[in-house]
Formats: sequence, structure tokens, C-alpha cells
Amino acid sequence: MSNYEPKPEHKFTFGLWTVGNRGRDPFGDAVRETLTPVNAVKLLAEVGAYGVNFHDNDLVPIEAGPSERDAIVAELRKTCEANNIKVPMATVNLFYEPVFRDGAFTANDSKVRAYAVQKTMQAMDLGAEFGAETFVLWGGREGVETDACRSVPDAIKRFREALDYLCEYSKSQGYGYKFALEAKPNEPRADIYFATTGSYLAFIETLENKEMVGVNPEVAHETMPGLNMMHAVAQAWEAGKLFHIDLNDQVPGRYDQDLRFGSANPKGAFWLVKFLEDVGYNGPRHFDAHAYRTEDYDGVKDFARGCMRTYLILKEKADQWNNNEEIRDIIAEIETTNKNGPLDDFDALQSSEFDRAALASKGLKYERLDQLTMDVLFGIA
Amino acid sequence: MSNYEPKPEHKFTFGLWTVGNRGRDPFGDAVRETLTPVNAVKLLAEVGAYGVNFHDNDLVPIEAGPSERDAIVAELRKTCEANNIKVPMATVNLFYEPVFRDGAFTANDSKVRAYAVQKTMQAMDLGAEFGAETFVLWGGREGVETDACRSVPDAIKRFREALDYLCEYSKSQGYGYKFALEAKPNEPRADIYFATTGSYLAFIETLENKEMVGVNPEVAHETMPGLNMMHAVAQAWEAGKLFHIDLNDQVPGRYDQDLRFGSANPKGAFWLVKFLEDVGYNGPRHFDAHAYRTEDYDGVKDFARGCMRTYLILKEKADQWNNNEEIRDIIAEIETTNKNGPLDDFDALQSSEFDRAALASKGLKYERLDQLTMDVLFGIA
Amino acid sequence: MSNYEPKPEHKFTFGLWTVGNRGRDPFGDAVRETLTPVNAVKLLAEVGAYGVNFHDNDLVPIEAGPSERDAIVAELRKTCEANNIKVPMATVNLFYEPVFRDGAFTANDSKVRAYAVQKTMQAMDLGAEFGAETFVLWGGREGVETDACRSVPDAIKRFREALDYLCEYSKSQGYGYKFALEAKPNEPRADIYFATTGSYLAFIETLENKEMVGVNPEVAHETMPGLNMMHAVAQAWEAGKLFHIDLNDQVPGRYDQDLRFGSANPKGAFWLVKFLEDVGYNGPRHFDAHAYRTEDYDGVKDFARGCMRTYLILKEKADQWNNNEEIRDIIAEIETTNKNGPLDDFDALQSSEFDRAALASKGLKYERLDQLTMDVLFGIA
Amino acid sequence: MSNYEPKPEHKFTFGLWTVGNRGRDPFGDAVRETLTPVNAVKLLAEVGAYGVNFHDNDLVPIEAGPSERDAIVAELRKTCEANNIKVPMATVNLFYEPVFRDGAFTANDSKVRAYAVQKTMQAMDLGAEFGAETFVLWGGREGVETDACRSVPDAIKRFREALDYLCEYSKSQGYGYKFALEAKPNEPRADIYFATTGSYLAFIETLENKEMVGVNPEVAHETMPGLNMMHAVAQAWEAGKLFHIDLNDQVPGRYDQDLRFGSANPKGAFWLVKFLEDVGYNGPRHFDAHAYRTEDYDGVKDFARGCMRTYLILKEKADQWNNNEEIRDIIAEIETTNKNGPLDDFDALQSSEFDRAALASKGLKYERLDQLTMDVLFGIA
Repeated sequence: MSNYEPKPEHKFTFGLWTVGNRGRDPFGDAVRETLTPVNAVKLLAEVGAYGVNFHDNDLVPIEAGPSERDAIVAELRKTCEANNIKVPMATVNLFYEPVFRDGAFTANDSKVRAYAVQKTMQAMDLGAEFGAETFVLWGGREGVETDACRSVPDAIKRFREALDYLCEYSKSQGYGYKFALEAKPNEPRADIYFATTGSYLAFIETLENKEMVGVNPEVAHETMPGLNMMHAVAQAWEAGKLFHIDLNDQVPGRYDQDLRFGSANPKGAFWLVKFLEDVGYNGPRHFDAHAYRTEDYDGVKDFARGCMRTYLILKEKADQWNNNEEIRDIIAEIETTNKNGPLDDFDALQSSEFDRAALASKGLKYERLDQLTMDVLFGIA
Repeated sequence: MSNYEPKPEHKFTFGLWTVGNRGRDPFGDAVRETLTPVNAVKLLAEVGAYGVNFHDNDLVPIEAGPSERDAIVAELRKTCEANNIKVPMATVNLFYEPVFRDGAFTANDSKVRAYAVQKTMQAMDLGAEFGAETFVLWGGREGVETDACRSVPDAIKRFREALDYLCEYSKSQGYGYKFALEAKPNEPRADIYFATTGSYLAFIETLENKEMVGVNPEVAHETMPGLNMMHAVAQAWEAGKLFHIDLNDQVPGRYDQDLRFGSANPKGAFWLVKFLEDVGYNGPRHFDAHAYRTEDYDGVKDFARGCMRTYLILKEKADQWNNNEEIRDIIAEIETTNKNGPLDDFDALQSSEFDRAALASKGLKYERLDQLTMDVLFGIA
Repeated sequence: MSNYEPKPEHKFTFGLWTVGNRGRDPFGDAVRETLTPVNAVKLLAEVGAYGVNFHDNDLVPIEAGPSERDAIVAELRKTCEANNIKVPMATVNLFYEPVFRDGAFTANDSKVRAYAVQKTMQAMDLGAEFGAETFVLWGGREGVETDACRSVPDAIKRFREALDYLCEYSKSQGYGYKFALEAKPNEPRADIYFATTGSYLAFIETLENKEMVGVNPEVAHETMPGLNMMHAVAQAWEAGKLFHIDLNDQVPGRYDQDLRFGSANPKGAFWLVKFLEDVGYNGPRHFDAHAYRTEDYDGVKDFARGCMRTYLILKEKADQWNNNEEIRDIIAEIETTNKNGPLDDFDALQSSEFDRAALASKGLKYERLDQLTMDVLFGIA
Repeated sequence: MSNYEPKPEHKFTFGLWTVGNRGRDPFGDAVRETLTPVNAVKLLAEVGAYGVNFHDNDLVPIEAGPSERDAIVAELRKTCEANNIKVPMATVNLFYEPVFRDGAFTANDSKVRAYAVQKTMQAMDLGAEFGAETFVLWGGREGVETDACRSVPDAIKRFREALDYLCEYSKSQGYGYKFALEAKPNEPRADIYFATTGSYLAFIETLENKEMVGVNPEVAHETMPGLNMMHAVAQAWEAGKLFHIDLNDQVPGRYDQDLRFGSANPKGAFWLVKFLEDVGYNGPRHFDAHAYRTEDYDGVKDFARGCMRTYLILKEKADQWNNNEEIRDIIAEIETTNKNGPLDDFDALQSSEFDRAALASKGLKYERLDQLTMDVLFGIA
């Protein structure tokens, strides 16, 4: 590899809402004209993406009737095929409309909950028409401004009821979806339930069809509270639950920034790419990010190209890291202290003697290992 | 209730390390003389605590031989009995000694891992002699400064191996322990594995004896990354996994402060106490906190009394909240929109009509509800 | 005081943009109908506010011509007079329009900078027509997503040029404005220049008319990075620079929440109110906050009433704190160690002997003092 | 440059307390043997440092009498000369001893304040013997756990009194010191006064000898609350107040990590180095960091070498950035919109017409500029 050009095998995908983001923020108006779904797909094809994902209403306006919907679907399918753009994932917007101001699956009003489930079913129908295999659920409004308003166990039970129902719906329709749950700690609500990927991994174990449900960790969402994204991804992977991933970037302790991948925390991005490549994750690399408000659509292309380019640069660097001689030597030395056999039986272990001082005396060379990592990142090694 | 005096039924416990904390911090030396375990128990009895908990080395110095150990144990048991102080929980120190600088159960050196397991078994033996029913594990060094040093899935597997082994050990000895895993995101290491209570709840599901293992959420540890402690506790409770709890206080985005309960975030403390009391949690209320460095041992008593007093004040306020007429009216109004029946079948739901605008039109009165909560907190309601 | 009803002497003000906030957020649409300025003023009168503040475009649409502008002004002035609502502060919106996507006074395009200055002059003209005495400047877009785009010293010089010019303009027109600069660390841009109140206090010292310029600290903005709002206010006060204040609430390490005053961090709010009342701050108490998205305009009134009520509750508690006998005793005891005379001369001080151990031996009773503070807050003392 | 070897002209300095850090943390004991000052200097010479800095008690134990002190000084001076190690900066430890548990210059006990001033004078005497030109003051304990204990304006006045006194002392002794004040928001106390560099810059303007006093910004301390270190440094520089700098690294929202320079946030480190080099800062580059606890003294050398190596790598990259053709083209294009002339007079500006839409229409290419920056960082450009 040398030119860092995206290829289909890299499975780089973008949401319609990412390149189509118009730059609206809490203090400012949109700065870019609306990009139609068709033009978004063409833009993605131009920059070399593999696929596109969407919320139901990214594609079909919420007010659209059946024939309008079908026409939109037909046109986008044609555009995707013409441009060789896949739709590996679909999702549902349960946060934009005022009806969801108190949540969707966990809202206090049972009619809102039922509507949210119906809307999700229809988004699943929509995704299925495009061959989407993964269905992401981000519960952006499943939370509170004040804990006065709802019992948390009730909220959990409501969320479980919705998930159990939707799994059955997918089975009944033969959609074969894998659901991927996406955690976020706060924003737009003060505290969102299932604030971390770990929390969702635990919740999934309580579902009726738990094998159908995994997680969609997002760099920004794990980083907002200062957690280590790669650790969350690794736990999901180890549990067989890494069903999707959202790549972008973020500074801890801030609003959800959705920055270009690798542009805020390149070292964290490196560990993440290295992990995904080392373990052989073969799902989509989905960029859930958007361009700065200073950009026009040429800048949006720069942004999208930058996401993929940085991923490929870091993939190459992961390979360099794995093959760096001094790194390999230190890793090998670390391994000499690691005997992989099982622990002794209780009596034998209880009567073992350990020399604490000796075990604590040897320098572990982690500073050197980390500096070598920086050298690889800097292109100096 | 009116004088907020602690009683045995409140099950207020403190660690030996809490009232015995000497005020050492990264930039300063100890400011208080050593408090012996015996004197710590007497202090706890004086302030009205129900019980005491300890790490192995809070009680028995790591260098102590068997006879010294036995003498220490005998003396403390006698003191506990004389002062009617229980020992509901025990734990193990896997972080202070240099041997654990690279972790304990997850260390790269298999000898360190074996030693950590042995040390835990001996701490379990010790706790059992005091009748401890819960065994807390905080993996303070199970993490990294640099992700170069270890594969995260390897770390998870090592941690699982240790837990599976220790559960079997408890069974083999008839100890009847419940294990409670305590998460923390960072400090003293840059990133600690299983950074949140949710992450441990997920991990527990992968254990051989998962029914023996739950969590010990700590206010400070969930709050450090800005997460909602009560939400974490509620998820654990809903899953039947709230085996223990660590009460203290903390400002988000800082070093681990271990402040007097309720002294930094009284509203968060209120929701937490209200949750524990409403659901009928009947385990110990353990204060894992310590006095400011400005205090002598009279100040330590002020600190300990303050923790319990604030809990009891908030317990009373929870009751007031539940019985406040205006609050009850708003809650009742919220409930009118909540039909508890199951979702309709797929076809019926798909063909239902929902009036989004109508569902979004009614004010939900959460600002009023929250202000009433503040009034209760302020003693004005 | 007993009913916590707002009165004119409390000088409670709200921005048009606060009660008029329609609940739009980055992930959701407006949930409330537009509230006209006239109706906002009536709402404020109904809930008992003293005054209203506005950005130019809160009142006059950016596209309005001179006659439309004058009609709007006349109508609002009449409404204010009829309802006895003052306009103590005015400000300018330099962040909503796309023209400001790269900043206003610090934008790279000198035409944008000139336009921003012109717009500010016109907002000053507008405020002067309402008798506003304070002009707030929040540089919401004066920052970057990437530090590649601009030299920071250049940005500072540009900001200074604008401020010096605007001070002269105020003098030339005889407006008599005091300018109050409002800091914020991030959002909507990744890093905003002059990130804290301290940073602006330093900048002010470099201005030509520095006596005309002070600060407008905001609870949420100082709290976002976890700083102590009262400390910032106190430094500004001590320097004679507390020209205005923005009251609301916020959890550290998150998006800008603008919560109801005192609803997230009541203890911090208490110290702040106590400070303002103790030192005799006599400017407006401006609430820069907004109601939850779950609310209709009745809820907006609940929100506005709650801000003022909580301020008055805390004001009463500040008085209780100052008069609490045990608190006074501890404060008096603290004072016994505090000799207010000047330091000795160099030789005398160099040859003084200090007994470090003795000076470190006495408990300072701060835990007790803080618990008494909590008791006052809880209404128990 | 190609081998990134430190040379005297780079002015790389380390504190005795940095390479001498023994790895103690709040949850663990020291892991490295004591390194004597003499051996620390030799270690620094070996790794190629230019100089060493120290707190008084890093060098002279607090209990030492005059003759012991003089012998220690003589030995270290000899060692420094023999190894060509300079001492450009000295400082004073006002935080380790229990006597400072309530602060030093701001303590409530006037004897503690006087002692703190005396100790500082003696540390100034000590530094002067080594030719130190800069005297750093970090007020690590100048703060509170509870704001109940002290009036903030009183604390500010006390701090000012101490600074005014110490400036006079320096003048009286002909030391010629520049004082550099170092801010930190929290840890070891809950809230430290003058929490940010900006806050100290403002405070300095209130001093009698303000020209003698500047700031010592530290990467970790500005980053803990998530602020942009380079922005703080740039404001200090623009004000002529960048008297010293502390380089290390840190993740926002955590305990004070003092990581190897550039190892957590390499992009932030890049902007910082680029700023220092571009403006021609010629003071010491002081690394206030320490090695991981996993290291022996070989690892400490790896750590120290890594700090300097990364600085030199980033310095080279700053040069590459400045000379990158595509970057230069974009910067030149940005400059075309920037007219440097003064603003028009009031009437002319008021009557100017601006085309908002046109000014907002052009993409600013900041995404591309930032990706090019990443390419430079990655060694790909």
C-alpha cells in the first residue's frame, strides 16, 4: 500500500447524514445547501466509499406518502447500483421529531413508545429493501433532564420490551438483521440510559434473542466521558458482540464533536485501527462524522477523503508496528514472563512462595515501547 | 425520624482505610498519625457505625507471619464483638505493593497473576474469619499507561480465569461469598479495564459461576467520567446484581476525591438514596471516603458522622418527595399517558395511526417536578 | 423573606432568547412555537422579572429595513413600559448567521470583521434606545476547529482592535456603556479564544479604555471545564470588573446545558449567591438558561419562576449561614490564627523561627464547617 | 536535523523531581530507589539535557542545618559544572509538608503564611547560588476543599501581599529573578485559586512590580480542564509574559498525569512546539513529567530521552508544515481575504454595505488544511 486510496475491500461507509450534514449547530444556522440522497451517494462514489447508511428520514421525509416513498426508494436504489454503493446498515431516527422529546422506547407515554416501535419496524422494512444486514439503534432521547420523571428500571424494562419485539419482527419478516446498539452518555439529554458500550453489552444479555443483538461503539461517544474507545471495542469483540463501529473523533469532556477520523486523538485512532485489523474485524468501517461549518461541498469531500486516508495510513502503521524489530524484541521479552498454563490447584497455589521484591525489580520498558509507538506514528521509526 | 442518628438497621459501614486514611496525596505527606485497626473500630463504634470492612493489609501487615496474623485477627474480632461492629465485607489490596505496578490478575507476568490470586484467597480466608459475606474486588492496577503493552482480550481472559478460579475456591471452602466487582475508569493508571459498572455487568455474564458475582458501584468512580451513578446502580439492581455499594462524593472530570457523602452533588446523592430506599436495597451502605487533609481525628469523626447524617437526611427527604401532594399529582398525570399493556401484534401496530403533533403538544411539567425536588432538598416544600 | 417572590429590587432579568428558546438542539427540531418579543416581555412581567435583555436579532430580524426596525422598537418599548420591565443589558448576535462561521472580530476575512463591528455598533444603537447600560459580548465563534487556520496572537490583536474601536464608538455617541466580556471554552467551536473569565480579565488590561470593560461570567461556561464559578466571579469582583453575571446551571464536562439556576449544582449556586449578596453586588441577576424541551410555555414559566425562587431560597440560606451560631464559632476560631498585620521586614522574617509541627497539629474543623453548610442547604440547621 | 539528538541550544531542562520521581501514587508505594540529586544530574547529563531545576527540598532536606545545606550545595554545583548542566530555574515546595495542608501564601493562619514567605526567600537564596534566573511559583495548596473556610478576595489579597513582598526581596538582594506563576485547576485540593494561566495573567496586572512577574503554563494543568494549552501560551506570549514553560502530556478530565511530552496528545504538542519555534521563544523547554511506575532507571532514561526526541521531531515537523507547498497555497489564499488596514471611521463603517451571503459562500479549506497537518504529523506529507 502506498497511496492510501480507498478500495471496496476496506468497506468504508458513511451515513447520508454525515456528508449531508448542513452545519447547523445549537448557536448557528445551516451553512450548506441541502444535499439530496442521490447526490450524497454520487459524492460518496466520487470519493471512493464502499457504502452508505441512513436513518429512515434521511431518505424518506416523515410526511411522505407510500408512492412518494416508493419513488424515492427506487431512485436511490438505482443510484446506488449505478455507482456500486452498498447499504450495509440502516437505522431509524427516534430523536428529531418533537414527539420524541421525552424518549422513544422509554417515553412515559405508551403511545409514543408504540409509535417509536412502529417507526422502527418501517425503517427496518426500508433498510431491508436495500439489503441492509445491520440495524443500528441509537437511543438519543432515551434519558432524562431530571430523574424525577421516570423510574430507571421501568425505562430498562420498556427498552427491553421494544428490543424483544423488534427481534421477533425481524425474524417474522426473514430480514436476518443484526441489531447494533449505540451508547452515548449525554447530549441531547442530560443523562442518557445505557451510557456506555459496556452498559449495552450487559443489557443485551437480558434479551430473549440476545444472539441477534450486539453493539455499535462510537469513538466520540466513548470519548466524551474520557473512556478508552479501544477497550470498549475490545470487550465487545471478545464477547462476540462487535456488530458495527462508528469512526470519528472527539476531545473528552465536550459536546459531541463528530470530527474527522483521527484528527483529534491520532494515537487513540491508531490503537483502534490496529485492534480492528489485528483481530480481523470484517464489518463496515463507518464514519459517523461531519465536515466543519467552514466548508463547502468541496470541503466535505476533503473531509470524507481525510477520514479514509487516515484510516489507511494508520492501518499501514499498525503493520509497521507489528514488524518493528525493536518493538518485537520488547514484546518477546514481555512474553518470557508469561506462562500460559492454568493456575495450580488450590493447595499448591496456597503453599507457593512468591518473591515480591524480585517480581517488582525489573523495568518493563513500557516507556520505550510507547516512544517507539510514537515514532511509528510520526513516520520516524 | 428527626435526629438523623445512625442505628444498626441502617447498616452504615466504613472501611478501615477510610477513617484510617492519613491524608497522604500525590503532592503531600501524611498529616495524621496512624490509626490502629482496633482504634478505628472503636472510633466507628463511637460515631454509631454498624460495621467495618477491610483490605487484607489494612489489618494484617504484608510482612506478618502466621502467629502475628492470628494475634491481630483475634484482637480485632474481640474489639468488634465488644463494640458490636460487624464485618459484612472484605477485600484484597492488589494495588499498593510495587509487585502490582503492571496489574494483578491481568499482569503480563504470570507469576504476578498467580501471586495476586493467592493473595486474594488468603484475603478471603481472612474475611471469612470475620463472617464477611461479600468480597469486593477493585482492580485498581488492571489497566495500562500505554496500550502497547498488552492485548485487551488477553487481559479480559486473564481476569476471567482469576474470577472463575476464585469462585471455585469460595465454593470449595464453603465461604458462601458474593463477589462484588468495582469499576473505575482511570487513576492510578491511565486507563483501567472494565471502566464502568456497565462494563463489569457485561463481563459477569461470561463467568462460569455468574450467579456468585455482582457489582459494587462507587459514586466517585461513576462520577469521575461524568456518568449518572443512580442509573448505573439501577441497571445493576434491575439485573439482580447490586451486591454492595460504595458511597462518597466527587466532582466530574477530576482525580478520585472520595469526598464526604452528599457534599459535592447533593441532588445526585438524593436520587441515589431515594432509589436504594424505594427498591428496598438491604445491603450495607458503605462509605468509601475520607476526611480532608485539614482534619485531625476529631475532624475524622465529623466526617464520618456527616456521611451518615446526610444519608439519613436524604432518606427522610425521599419520603417527603414520595408524599408531596403536588409531586404526586404530577406523577399521577404522567401515569395517565402510560398504558402498561403489551404492544399490539405486528400487523395491528403497523397499521396503527399516531398523531405526532398531538403527542408532542402537551407540556410534561418536568421543570415543575424538578423544582419541587429542589424545594424538598432545600427543606422548603 | 418567606415566600420567595421576586421583587424589582432583586433585579432578576432574562434574555429574550431564554424564555423564547424553542428547544431546538443538535439532534432535534423546535418543540415550542415562536414567542414574539412582546409576548416574551409579557410572560416575564407575569412571572415577576425585573428586566429583559436581548441580542439585536432576538428583537429585530436581520433582514428588517429601517422602518420595520423602528416599529418593532417602538412596540417593544411600549410593552416594556406598560409592564414595568427594564432593559439593563443589550448584546449582539455574532454567531448565528453563516457569515460568522469563521468568527466575527477574529475572522480571517477582514470584511467579515468589519461587518461584525458594524453589526455591534448597530446593536449598541439599539440597546441605547432602551436605556441599556451594559453591553455584553460573547464571542461564540471566536475560535477554531483547527489551529492550522490562524495565528492566535493575530486573533488577539484583531479582538483588541475591535474592542478599542467599540469603546471609542460608545464614547463618541455618549452611550456610557460598560462592556462585559463573556468567556466560554468550547462549543460551538472546538476551542474558543479567551476560554475562561480569567483569560478575559487579563486581556482587558491591554485595552485602551480598559476602565470601560469588565466581564460577564456565566455559571455554565465556567463549569463546563470543571472550574469553580464563584472563584472566577470573586477574582473579577476583587479586580472591580464584575460588570454583569449570567446565572444558570451545568454539569462539568458536557455540552452547554443552560439549566435552571441551582438545579444541577445547588451547593455551587449557594456559594455564588452568598458571594454576590455578601459583597453587595448590585447589578442585574441575569438568567441565561432555558426550559427543558419537554415543556410548553406553562413549563417555561415554571422554569423562569424556579430560577428566581431558587436564588431567593439561597439568599435566605446565605443569611442563615452567616448567622448560624456554630458556624460563627468555627469562623471565629479560624480567625484567631489570622493576624492581619503586614509581614515583618526581610531580616526579621529571615531570622524568625517557625514550629512546623505545631502549626500542622490542630484540626481545622473544615469537615464540620462543610457539613453545617449542607445542613443549612438541606434546611436542617 | 535528522537524528533528533538534544543539544545545549535546545535548552532542555528537567526538574530533579521528574527523573527522581519514585513512582509513588495515591494507591501505591514508591517503586524506584531514591535518586540522589548528584546522580540525577549525572543521569540528565547522560541523556543530553541542558539543565536541571529544583524545589528547595528536592536538594536540601527540610531538616538540614546550615552546614549540611552548604555541603549539599557545593557538591551539586561541582557536579553541575563537571557535567555542564545549568540551573536556569528554581522553585519552592509549599505543598508537601503538613504545615501547608491549608495553603501557604493564602493559609488562614498568618504564621503559616509568614513561614511560607520565609521558605520562599530561602529557596530564592538557594536558586541564586546556582545562577537561576527564573523563579517558579506553583501554589499547589492555595485553594479549598470547601469554600466555607475562606473568602476568596482575602485569599487573593494574601497572595498579592506575598508576591509584592517577594519581588521586593529579589530586588533587595539583586537576584534579578523573573517570577513565573504556574496555574492548576484542581488536585491536590478540590479547587485551586487562579485555576488557569489566564487567571494568573490577570492577577499579575494588580502587582506592584508586575514587570517582574509572568507565567509558567503547564501542558497537563491547562489540559486537565480540557483547555487549549497553545492558546494559553499564545496569550501569555502576546502579553510579554511567557517567562517559562512546563512540557508534559495529559488526557483531559483526569488526575494530573505528567506524561512523557507528546505521548497523549501529539497534535496539541505539535501546535505548541510550532508556536514556540515560530515566535522564537528562547527560554528553557522544561519537562515537568515523570516515567511510568513500570520503569526502572533505564526506563527513566527512556522517558527523558523520549521527551526531548519528540520535541525535536515536532520541531522538524513544524518546519515541514511551514514549507509544505499545498499548505502555503491555502494559507496564501486565506490571506487574500485579509486586508490589514485599520477599520474605517464610524460614519463610513456605519454606512458600508456587506453582502452576508457572498461572505459566507466560499469554502475555507480548513478540513484540507487540517488533514495536511495530520499528514505532516504522520510523516506522509
